[in-house]
Amino acid sequence: MTQEQYRPRARLPRGFRDRTASEIATERQMLDTIRRVYESYGFEALETPALEYADALGKFLPDQDRPNEGVFSFQDDDEQWVSLRYDLTAPLARYVAENFQNLPKPFRRYQTGTVWRNEKPGPGRFREFIQFDADTVGSASPSADAELLMMLSDTYEALGLKRGDYLIKLNSRKLLDGVLEIAEVDATRRGTVLRAIDKFDRLGARGVEALLGAGRKDDSGDFTKGADLSANAISRVLAFVTSEQAQDSNEALSALGDAIRGSAVGEEGLANLRAILGLAEKSGYGPDRIRLDTGIVRGLDYYTGPVFEAQLTFPVTNEAGETIVFGSVGSGGRYDDLVARFTGQRVPASGVSIGVSRLLTALKTRSTADAFAANPLVVVLVLDKAEAASSFAMARDLREAGFRVEAYTGEAGMKAQFKYADRRNAAVAIIEGSDERARGEVMVKDLVLGAELAKSVEGRAAWVKDRPAQAAVPRDQLITYLRNLFEVRGGE
Amino acid sequence: MTQEQYRPRARLPRGFRDRTASEIATERQMLDTIRRVYESYGFEALETPALEYADALGKFLPDQDRPNEGVFSFQDDDEQWVSLRYDLTAPLARYVAENFQNLPKPFRRYQTGTVWRNEKPGPGRFREFIQFDADTVGSASPSADAELLMMLSDTYEALGLKRGDYLIKLNSRKLLDGVLEIAEVDATRRGTVLRAIDKFDRLGARGVEALLGAGRKDDSGDFTKGADLSANAISRVLAFVTSEQAQDSNEALSALGDAIRGSAVGEEGLANLRAILGLAEKSGYGPDRIRLDTGIVRGLDYYTGPVFEAQLTFPVTNEAGETIVFGSVGSGGRYDDLVARFTGQRVPASGVSIGVSRLLTALKTRSTADAFAANPLVVVLVLDKAEAASSFAMARDLREAGFRVEAYTGEAGMKAQFKYADRRNAAVAIIEGSDERARGEVMVKDLVLGAELAKSVEGRAAWVKDRPAQAAVPRDQLITYLRNLFEVRGGE
Repeated sequence: MTQEQYRPRARLPRGFRDRTASEIATERQMLDTIRRVYESYGFEALETPALEYADALGKFLPDQDRPNEGVFSFQDDDEQWVSLRYDLTAPLARYVAENFQNLPKPFRRYQTGTVWRNEKPGPGRFREFIQFDADTVGSASPSADAELLMMLSDTYEALGLKRGDYLIKLNSRKLLDGVLEIAEVDATRRGTVLRAIDKFDRLGARGVEALLGAGRKDDSGDFTKGADLSANAISRVLAFVTSEQAQDSNEALSALGDAIRGSAVGEEGLANLRAILGLAEKSGYGPDRIRLDTGIVRGLDYYTGPVFEAQLTFPVTNEAGETIVFGSVGSGGRYDDLVARFTGQRVPASGVSIGVSRLLTALKTRSTADAFAANPLVVVLVLDKAEAASSFAMARDLREAGFRVEAYTGEAGMKAQFKYADRRNAAVAIIEGSDERARGEVMVKDLVLGAELAKSVEGRAAWVKDRPAQAAVPRDQLITYLRNLFEVRGGE
Repeated sequence: MTQEQYRPRARLPRGFRDRTASEIATERQMLDTIRRVYESYGFEALETPALEYADALGKFLPDQDRPNEGVFSFQDDDEQWVSLRYDLTAPLARYVAENFQNLPKPFRRYQTGTVWRNEKPGPGRFREFIQFDADTVGSASPSADAELLMMLSDTYEALGLKRGDYLIKLNSRKLLDGVLEIAEVDATRRGTVLRAIDKFDRLGARGVEALLGAGRKDDSGDFTKGADLSANAISRVLAFVTSEQAQDSNEALSALGDAIRGSAVGEEGLANLRAILGLAEKSGYGPDRIRLDTGIVRGLDYYTGPVFEAQLTFPVTNEAGETIVFGSVGSGGRYDDLVARFTGQRVPASGVSIGVSRLLTALKTRSTADAFAANPLVVVLVLDKAEAASSFAMARDLREAGFRVEAYTGEAGMKAQFKYADRRNAAVAIIEGSDERARGEVMVKDLVLGAELAKSVEGRAAWVKDRPAQAAVPRDQLITYLRNLFEVRGGE
């Protein structure tokens, strides 16, 4: 087979997809809104490259048991491994370490961009997606964490979510560390205990209790061996997991205080959460927006203290029309050791990340707004090729008057040109035949009305009465005519 | 060395760089402007992934002698080679081939995005940059090409370039093919002839004539062997290259007509150029914007007819302060065979691409506008950590009133907080000490005025008279006070 004969198949690798105008426009509005909120808080934009040295990014992907998995990597000319970024936090740590002396502290930046994951794709699970992050680097103060949570809340509301549509849940790694310390859970039993805690939602307190003790036999008779903790240790861990059921955050904090009492790291985590929740509440961000939830763990290894996750409270319908439990639409936490990887010097940092593509999917089901609806398209047909310049000039005049307009640039005849205008969802087609040109007129065909007429016989009389589907319009009155037409339509 | 002890160096691979707020804001304005123009012409957005199968992208990089060079590639799980896109045209061809049946024809899309080149980086030459493309697929009509040229012209003017600051130069591959055909240049001598043509700007007609004939001895005495063309062939090629020197495009077209007379492909190319230039001229885009230039070749192999390139006519200063010849800030052409790679079916297509990062560099030297200047930053200091919530509430109120404002989230004292506000180029710092709070006041410190005072003793009296650098303001009048302050500043 020669080079010329070989025909590659036109297809994308799995987990990647093309996106078209309406989705892109909606996403752009979303990005603009998030950016506006972040900038209003004084966060400043930073952009880092898509490619970084693999060792600079490190391996901080959630759920990665195998090294080198999850990241797209290759060797550069100088044999060094280079990777596509899998998030925006690892590049930030590299940037801060590289420029530490010259940055204001705290350094507060936002970044939006594409990230890539070399993972098994699935329905709704892509290997390329957009994140929107904000981070405060160089402050260990709970006010840095509280500000991020409040800003996240403002962002969701700016995006059109109502109070109660979303909840931002806060926990601390240190609480879990504290209760495991006080319950004297050693490294060998840590995994068993964490898995038991994770099953609280499904099995309830009795089920977890069994898994923390001797073990649990499920309905099918299968036996899961337990962690064999002491009675005291079990009661501490149970106090921790059941604190979720408290009436309010004060009661929850108090239950957690009992669970971690005597553990320095636990007490520290609790004091920190109290400070964050207190700041938020005093600023008007109460538990209807930001609340404690010990069920929030977050997969990332690098978190050192507070972790948070935003969830939607309303049912989301997937493409198959099924109601699904929609996971996190934003998350983050404190990661005090990430810059120290490079410098050896601990730099406290906290950040939040919005999964833009996921949030867009979720919001689609709530919003009927089409970003393009406000900007109707005008197509100027070209019937006489020798007069194409006249169509172009007309398109230019209309464009300068603010319309979105194209002159037909293909090679087909009138019938195909009308079909084309329909395919493009044009609102109006303009025809300038030689007769019209001689009279200084153009023919304006209302394609939306035409479609309505074709659909509805009933409405025909009323429609036709005032606005014929096709009208001869003096060329020097075309702009006024179209403005009136679109204004009427806007009010329909 | 254990995992914990290993410290990677914080650095980027060569040819990549981080970008900060002011550059990002300027670039965003530029992208928004280009998008507005393209959309006003009815082009619709498309986004394809950064990664594609290597065989789907093909190898269409300019100046690539070695296969597999120029592109970042790696093997996917299924052993297939995957590449980072090196332009936006190859992915478009893949998209069109994959979705041909469902697209309106002509299909007119724009796309902006990052592309990557695995090339040797140099000063101002990066391996990651942004392109902004528009293409019309499915039309062989010269009106498709003419529209792209006119839209490109509109785009430069929307970006602030004046008529005469830029020139869009048009040529056709078919002219060159025609003259080589008529001059009976065989494949073995084609390279020698093209190199000779390329030297016209440097050596003039006599030099090129020598190189087309027996050869040329340069000033140092070195002899370059020539192409040994016949006298008739030489005169044809010379007529081609010297057509550039014509007074106007009619004269140039006529000279070119002489050069390619008798070659079908040459005549076709010339007729096509006449049609494009005629359409543009009749639409008001004359040779002060769009003109013929046989010196435009474009490196890409895939062009089949018209090729165009936009150049700046004013001197550009580089970072070292030197005046440089700034190359193309936009280019494109017709590529009728790119979709046929997949389908075997020829699909005429024409496109234009703006090198956004390059254009941004060039425009920087023309523009003094700082995108951030209009949006001053307010920093609310936090003197008493127990009262941080009060600072947050004040920041929130100001934000709701439209200011860009942050409450300090770090852990340092007052002096360091003032330093921080300076580092952030804040316009104003707001201090609420316990005394002020008791009186229901805040202290507003004008940092811009403060900086002015520190610089200029002369202006001091006038400044201080009406606007002290620091003022106690009742908290309920803070918004009005800041509005007045920034309004006065805006008028300075």
